[in-house]
Amino acid sequence: MTKMNIGIIGGGAVGMLCAWYFGKQGHNITMYVRREEQCKELRQHGMQMREEQTRLYPTVHRSTNLKPEEVYVICTKQHAIEQIVHQLSQTPFISPLLFLQNGMEHVNHFSKLKNPIIVGVVEHGAMKHSDTLIGHTGRGIIRISPVTSDVHSAKEIKDALHYVEFPVRLEENWYDMLARKLVINAVINPITALFQVKNGGILQNEHLNSLAYLLCEEACSVVSLPVNVMWEEVQHIAKQTEANESSMMKDIKEGNKTEIEAISGYLLKHSSESIPYTTCMYKSVRAIEGIRKGEVNE
Amino acid sequence: MTKMNIGIIGGGAVGMLCAWYFGKQGHNITMYVRREEQCKELRQHGMQMREEQTRLYPTVHRSTNLKPEEVYVICTKQHAIEQIVHQLSQTPFISPLLFLQNGMEHVNHFSKLKNPIIVGVVEHGAMKHSDTLIGHTGRGIIRISPVTSDVHSAKEIKDALHYVEFPVRLEENWYDMLARKLVINAVINPITALFQVKNGGILQNEHLNSLAYLLCEEACSVVSLPVNVMWEEVQHIAKQTEANESSMMKDIKEGNKTEIEAISGYLLKHSSESIPYTTCMYKSVRAIEGIRKGEVNE
Repeated sequence: MTKMNIGIIGGGAVGMLCAWYFGKQGHNITMYVRREEQCKELRQHGMQMREEQTRLYPTVHRSTNLKPEEVYVICTKQHAIEQIVHQLSQTPFISPLLFLQNGMEHVNHFSKLKNPIIVGVVEHGAMKHSDTLIGHTGRGIIRISPVTSDVHSAKEIKDALHYVEFPVRLEENWYDMLARKLVINAVINPITALFQVKNGGILQNEHLNSLAYLLCEEACSVVSLPVNVMWEEVQHIAKQTEANESSMMKDIKEGNKTEIEAISGYLLKHSSESIPYTTCMYKSVRAIEGIRKGEVNE
Repeated sequence: MTKMNIGIIGGGAVGMLCAWYFGKQGHNITMYVRREEQCKELRQHGMQMREEQTRLYPTVHRSTNLKPEEVYVICTKQHAIEQIVHQLSQTPFISPLLFLQNGMEHVNHFSKLKNPIIVGVVEHGAMKHSDTLIGHTGRGIIRISPVTSDVHSAKEIKDALHYVEFPVRLEENWYDMLARKLVINAVINPITALFQVKNGGILQNEHLNSLAYLLCEEACSVVSLPVNVMWEEVQHIAKQTEANESSMMKDIKEGNKTEIEAISGYLLKHSSESIPYTTCMYKSVRAIEGIRKGEVNE
């Protein structure tokens, strides 16, 4: 197996999960994180996976201080993408970039980059407990697919990252792959966030279930995917991850900004027709974000 | 002023508010309540209005035991209407009936009754603190309008009930009056219930405000009212009652069944076109009712 110098940008749940498993395989991991505090914590205590005894000590830098790497794995949330892309476009090294965001909003920024670009979707459940501790709450897979990278290089990266405990799979059609994930997120995320229910909630209540179907139908119409196939997939994922809290549910619970712009907002921007159920969920999640920030006298 | 024997059916906030003010005017009040417990409490302790020293001791019966009255004021929630109408239809006395429900669902049951029927809308804020204690949280008006009653009798009842502290006004067009209130409820109630904000919330957050407008537009299209006029009115009411909790917000908070069926559900049943924002709110409120009942594993 080829050992690589991997730069992981973003110290959230997905960034730490990737750092952990790629590091365990023997790659040289450098984590680039936004906050000085997390930087210090990781340098001092290393990273820990819940229920495991060992620690991983990656190299740690601030995300404003990018060093040459053989591949960057970008694990920030959508709303940090613009800034990260700007920084990457300023570096002299044209390393391959693997983007692991939810939604499809990041795709709009790719034209600013000369680097070979690969996109991926993360089908794992992960939970960040602290700046150094994570949990792997749902075992899944990472699917990746080349956008501007050639297929051969994408396959080499896939082979390097793939690991039986943390599988990585190559997909042919990146648009299709992202669109499928977008549909799933556009259904599960806003409902679980708005009603503060776990993923299984959309299967357990008839009204949430019918809202979920209506959202699935609208999302499929925007990204041109077959609704019957995707509705099966949404329900399958909701069942498989029924005890998991979606990232958007967590964001609302913890008073963080959600990724609603990149998910439902993307669909709204790219739809030629009215998609009222998606609009309703978009406005609702944005409203809750505002209420949490104290915009409304409760 | 004519003293009347008034039977008030329903011991909730509106029933108690009416009993208090009509009683204060010197009418003979009999309250008909559902629960034996409230019956006992009211008989023993009488009724009290918060921040007032006196007590009112109405006659109290179970609502299954209707006695002859000169007018019945029906103050139950919509979901109790079917049963109350059935009981009223079984009594030998054809007393005038004044219905004070939210929504318009009760109108469908009027054909089962031979009594002269008057409908009313309550523009007061009231809060039931216990089975014997209420608060008058927002001073307003009661508007009434004859449906199958002749106008003359309706005016007599209006004159008897009207009181400077608790004004009652006669309206010409009952459908219009109920429809206006329905539109206001269809906007304010589901939003405040879903987001657990006070009435003013729909003015304080841009996303709630735009959802409110979309709901107003749909409701107006179903009941054929002008949206520009009604949107002004909705905002005016929300401003006037900004610190009030809507009845639906309270029902959700307290784990009670809401009146969503009679409000948004009525619009859904009577709309010839798709009204997706109303549908979304309807399903959302029904979902929360279910979640509160533990239908979903949180």
